[in-house]
Amino acid sequence: MSHSIKVAQFGLGPIGQNCLHLLAKDPRFEIVGAVDINPQFVGQSVAEVCGLAENLGGFVRASFEDLWAVHQPDAVLHTAGSRASTSFAQCRPMVERGVAVVSSCEELLFPWHRAPDETRMMDELCRRFGGRILGTGVNPGFVLDVLPVVLSTVACAVRGVQGTRVVNASLRRQPLQKKIGSGLAPEEFRRLWREGKAGHAGFQESLCLLAHALQWKMGAITENLEPVLAEREVCTEFFHVQPGQTRGLHQTVSAVSDHGCRIHLDLTMALDEESPQDRVILDSEPALEMVVPGGVSGDRATVASLVNALPRLLRTAPGVRLMTDLPLTVGES
Amino acid sequence: MSHSIKVAQFGLGPIGQNCLHLLAKDPRFEIVGAVDINPQFVGQSVAEVCGLAENLGGFVRASFEDLWAVHQPDAVLHTAGSRASTSFAQCRPMVERGVAVVSSCEELLFPWHRAPDETRMMDELCRRFGGRILGTGVNPGFVLDVLPVVLSTVACAVRGVQGTRVVNASLRRQPLQKKIGSGLAPEEFRRLWREGKAGHAGFQESLCLLAHALQWKMGAITENLEPVLAEREVCTEFFHVQPGQTRGLHQTVSAVSDHGCRIHLDLTMALDEESPQDRVILDSEPALEMVVPGGVSGDRATVASLVNALPRLLRTAPGVRLMTDLPLTVGES
Repeated sequence: MSHSIKVAQFGLGPIGQNCLHLLAKDPRFEIVGAVDINPQFVGQSVAEVCGLAENLGGFVRASFEDLWAVHQPDAVLHTAGSRASTSFAQCRPMVERGVAVVSSCEELLFPWHRAPDETRMMDELCRRFGGRILGTGVNPGFVLDVLPVVLSTVACAVRGVQGTRVVNASLRRQPLQKKIGSGLAPEEFRRLWREGKAGHAGFQESLCLLAHALQWKMGAITENLEPVLAEREVCTEFFHVQPGQTRGLHQTVSAVSDHGCRIHLDLTMALDEESPQDRVILDSEPALEMVVPGGVSGDRATVASLVNALPRLLRTAPGVRLMTDLPLTVGES
Repeated sequence: MSHSIKVAQFGLGPIGQNCLHLLAKDPRFEIVGAVDINPQFVGQSVAEVCGLAENLGGFVRASFEDLWAVHQPDAVLHTAGSRASTSFAQCRPMVERGVAVVSSCEELLFPWHRAPDETRMMDELCRRFGGRILGTGVNPGFVLDVLPVVLSTVACAVRGVQGTRVVNASLRRQPLQKKIGSGLAPEEFRRLWREGKAGHAGFQESLCLLAHALQWKMGAITENLEPVLAEREVCTEFFHVQPGQTRGLHQTVSAVSDHGCRIHLDLTMALDEESPQDRVILDSEPALEMVVPGGVSGDRATVASLVNALPRLLRTAPGVRLMTDLPLTVGES
């Protein structure tokens, strides 16, 4: 690669800070600054806020426009929310300046699902100004959507996809343990789920991306969530869960196509969960199965997926992009 | 997709005929003819030669030029050899007419390895005339090269790749049972291997594609082959192997990069082999492992990989393409 990619970080939560640590070690990238709404961060150096060893990374700005006035990044890593419409609003000034945005926003994995009008508008802006925007991660973004699509490239007559992911959340960060309902009464967790305030985001988007790649027209999507209850006391760094309280979630999403092809995705994320693993089964010729013992788990993988997507995204044409549009290579050919 | 892709088949061996059967069932494609050197086939209808149920597929021609005079395919499936230079010579008239070629030729997985000058010339021709050429399959083309690259997209600090494939060849077609040395005396098989007349082709190319995608500069490649000997009599439809004779091969390929990163690939293909499976292990953060129980095996998967690569290849820019250049989607976005 002839020159490094100038990157700015939007959002300095745990994932955003970990992205900066990875970017700082990678000669493909040059960090030019960060954006965060926290007034305690604004004006400080990125190295200071994130504990980067060297004096790398410029300063934290209050807005992307403030940053752009000083530095013009080629790309932005956006880690600031799960909703497509909020994320699109935040990223609009970036794509209007021809910037390539990789976002951890779960709904951006397949934004056509929940925000088709805004996606169309963003796609037009991207094409007009040379911008790109992509949502990715490990889940959604890899295990239950990209992996089955990868497997389908060596199969014919695919009639069904079954994906199962089991995560032991005991060693994960606090926000993840919270979103899976740790310590809540089961009825309280169900209520939060119904109100859209708990559970795994982007699950329907995984199904939509799969259906899109397989060129299946799906009927209505069914999504369910049930709390996983503790049978004995469970203690982590952040939560103490009593027997009968929620220690995690069991969430499923499924749909059938107009030709009877089925997608069923099944996710368990819970504290003290035994036998974590990812598994994908294709009903196809030949029948195919793939297992990741232990599962692709942990925030390291999420951060790697975001950072590795940057040069891949820059190889695609401008527009709202999907993971299935990207070439595989991290670098240039 | 607005209209179907016009495809011709080059080579009517078992794989080529199976490709035609799959193409015939897939509404994305229209078969316009085939090319084969067998004088018994030339002039006959493709449907007759290949046993296609319907009167699909035009006629068998003696050369691509003969076919082109009547039909102008968008794409060609090339299944007629393992050597890069021979395949390039066969495919040159295709790419000079702007055709996209997907080939099962093992060395075309990474033709820069054994035929750099011819690859450069073909790449120039492709770019000048709008042609494309890609080598793929299951092995090489998926299990020990594409899969580890896919896994690396969610990892950082990759320092090593280990890939293992175990195939039970008992139920495979005759040419495959032959190429793994079935029934030969071990010294005879070793001699054929040294003369380049036996063993798995394209193994070094898998390693090269991996190194390319990971942007590693590898030192010398070491490749070894040892016969797997029968301990008891083994009978298949095609071979009777006595104790002490060869029932298959154990082949390895490995190299170390200038920064100490390692690739080691390990392949066992043998009659009566127990516990077939594919396994990929990344030495990375996080450490990652992926297993395909039973392995991606059988000619159905190979044929599917070739056919599915066609629309993906057509989405790339003209040139000599690698599997890692392709977007994932089978169809258009």
